[in-house]
Amino acid sequence: MKQGKLEKKRQPRLEKVAGNGLLSRRHLLGLGLGGAGLAMSQAVMGQDAGLKLEIPGWSKTPGPGPSAYGSASSHVGLERQSGFGNPLYPGGGASRSPLQHLQGTITPNNLHFERHHAGVPDIDPAGHKLVINGLVRQPLVFDYEDLLKYTMVSRIYFLECSGNSGALLYGGNPDGTAQSLHGLVSCAEWTGIPISTLLEEAGVLPEARWIAAVGADAASMGRSVPLNKAMDDSMLALFQNGEPVRPEQGYPMRLFNPGWEGNTSVKWLTQIKVTREPAQFRDETSKYTDTMPDRKSLQFTFPMDVKSLITSPSGQMTVARNGVYRVNGIAWSGSGSIRRVEVSADGGSTWADALIDSQQLDKALTRFSIPWQWDGSPAVLQSRATDSTGNVQPTREAVIAAKGTINRYHNPCIQSWGVSPSGEVTNVYV
Amino acid sequence: MKQGKLEKKRQPRLEKVAGNGLLSRRHLLGLGLGGAGLAMSQAVMGQDAGLKLEIPGWSKTPGPGPSAYGSASSHVGLERQSGFGNPLYPGGGASRSPLQHLQGTITPNNLHFERHHAGVPDIDPAGHKLVINGLVRQPLVFDYEDLLKYTMVSRIYFLECSGNSGALLYGGNPDGTAQSLHGLVSCAEWTGIPISTLLEEAGVLPEARWIAAVGADAASMGRSVPLNKAMDDSMLALFQNGEPVRPEQGYPMRLFNPGWEGNTSVKWLTQIKVTREPAQFRDETSKYTDTMPDRKSLQFTFPMDVKSLITSPSGQMTVARNGVYRVNGIAWSGSGSIRRVEVSADGGSTWADALIDSQQLDKALTRFSIPWQWDGSPAVLQSRATDSTGNVQPTREAVIAAKGTINRYHNPCIQSWGVSPSGEVTNVYV
Repeated sequence: MKQGKLEKKRQPRLEKVAGNGLLSRRHLLGLGLGGAGLAMSQAVMGQDAGLKLEIPGWSKTPGPGPSAYGSASSHVGLERQSGFGNPLYPGGGASRSPLQHLQGTITPNNLHFERHHAGVPDIDPAGHKLVINGLVRQPLVFDYEDLLKYTMVSRIYFLECSGNSGALLYGGNPDGTAQSLHGLVSCAEWTGIPISTLLEEAGVLPEARWIAAVGADAASMGRSVPLNKAMDDSMLALFQNGEPVRPEQGYPMRLFNPGWEGNTSVKWLTQIKVTREPAQFRDETSKYTDTMPDRKSLQFTFPMDVKSLITSPSGQMTVARNGVYRVNGIAWSGSGSIRRVEVSADGGSTWADALIDSQQLDKALTRFSIPWQWDGSPAVLQSRATDSTGNVQPTREAVIAAKGTINRYHNPCIQSWGVSPSGEVTNVYV
Repeated sequence: MKQGKLEKKRQPRLEKVAGNGLLSRRHLLGLGLGGAGLAMSQAVMGQDAGLKLEIPGWSKTPGPGPSAYGSASSHVGLERQSGFGNPLYPGGGASRSPLQHLQGTITPNNLHFERHHAGVPDIDPAGHKLVINGLVRQPLVFDYEDLLKYTMVSRIYFLECSGNSGALLYGGNPDGTAQSLHGLVSCAEWTGIPISTLLEEAGVLPEARWIAAVGADAASMGRSVPLNKAMDDSMLALFQNGEPVRPEQGYPMRLFNPGWEGNTSVKWLTQIKVTREPAQFRDETSKYTDTMPDRKSLQFTFPMDVKSLITSPSGQMTVARNGVYRVNGIAWSGSGSIRRVEVSADGGSTWADALIDSQQLDKALTRFSIPWQWDGSPAVLQSRATDSTGNVQPTREAVIAAKGTINRYHNPCIQSWGVSPSGEVTNVYV
């Protein structure tokens, strides 16, 4: 096997589109990235070259047959990463999705991020009730089996904790990875009953303006949601990527508010009370409010902003000198679909449009990429998303200027990954 | 708690759209299905009725905190169902997805159907090679890590074994379930490198017309694929629903031919040889050909037909008398997207349009439903899909008339579920 022949003829054709090595997107479409496939010597390998490669052991002996329940390869080993547990709040904490090792837009259920306020209740659906009461003509109570008879819709939506990426606001976690800095976002196909269907059955009274949603966990986690959102696209989610919602996602049922901060999508949902005013639950007063520089707090900051993130290369990865890379990542917006993602390799001086590699669904993760030829000089990789409403992802400076550094919620700022001459990639504050 | 008040005022409004109880789709949108939600007595329950329900144990004590890797609730227990193993072919066989218990369109990776010819090889990606040779200007060999640098696309596609639903052709499996009869179809987001990218790097010679794809399993499973398909939308799939392709789906890499019979999407792909003629592999001569009544066999019958299936209610389920049900299921086509699904409750005499409950993506599962009010008389439930090319799913009689009963492959026929007066649902041949 030898290398080089293809290199020579391909390199002169690489078309630069922005500073520090960003290449035209056509290089992703029509050509491989230089040097990844090794040319085989015809003399050594012959036309049936593949047959002369060493035959590995796994090709010589039959493996195990079909199984009742699959599992990942032992060579993969992806895991969620847990953080901010507090011994005073047993079962509290979060775990983050390994974004830098995932591709596409769907998060497999085993690796969907978690955020709990009193751990994961082990709910027997036969003993779970959903009550709808408050400002309704007729209070209702539902069993799980009853709900399975209802109309359902299936939609692919991201879910993001409002505390995701918070460390960037105060300049923390300098050694962070895509997972540790931004892993509180995931994406799944959620199937459930439109909340409007259930509320219409109960009959909402004219003076109603909010719903108060309460979970069956030991924290009685509660959030208030404006009635117009509930009647628009909120659902009672019963299935996640085809199977019943996972315990850590609210089994047997959760509220799901597309595009809104994760904790409003109350898990293990057991009550929807229709109200005139928000309930002022603990988790919308003492937490999940955005404290501004004047120490006043914004409350009910529901929609998640337009945002993107380069997942590869990213923090704690290493790039080899003089390689051509597929810089790629994810983009999303709580207000619509992703219209455009730009990438910079020079810390924001110049930008080039990335390619969109996936479906561009409303309020779902979207995958982007761009080829990048690294020459060994320092680089700062950034991405910047624009959504279908025209909103553009802001810089860190802009977010801090607008909202200060006390606040830990709703940070959509551009992530900067520094690449050192030795190829080490780190979270940098530029 | 009491029932009945809502029943009385809702029943007269139910609008019939086809025989034997099929209801207007608007009943799914604006109203719940009668009687599922129990009305609560205001006198007994009060405005805070939910709080007076018995508080279950799981709401009283914190549960376990976040975990590195999730698992399904112990109350769910979904499994694949294995079949047709043969002791003469160790590791051979298949397992089927539990379609009657899934919702939406995505199949979780743990439950994606399998079909193996010599079991599942345990491949270390560091020792796996992909060779491209044959009629190319420059044979190439790729390592796994190299391939991760390439351009990738992410698309949601169904995958179906060409032998799926074969029992219906010869009238077998009368006690079959949606899983045992039709469970060799699943759907996932597949992410990978367009095969065209790799072939263009190798440089396809003008006389080339086919590729021969070979897997690294002990069966050296091989299939020939026309070059124009490979250059159109075939991919080297590396990720499945976001994570690396599962071992039983070809880890570390498989060929994926959207819309085509599953076994052409060669798993554990280790060689693509570009050729002038098809390779005539064992699995495209002795198997996976469609033998017609004159004992001649059709070869290379690649695209999967337009098809649909009611998954609930379905075989071995029971419906309660006088209930209103969400009849629902999945539809798909190897030639495009699903345009329309009709449902009949009287064995095909009358039909009504079902509602589409999911995205309608090209070559992906699509979820449909329709409300059905059962009055306890015998019923035969059927669904009939139409795709974006105008193809309509045929009856069983039409398939048998065209292709006879020797053939076991490519059966897209309409499934009939009989409902007895006692509410038992069974596979029936009408």
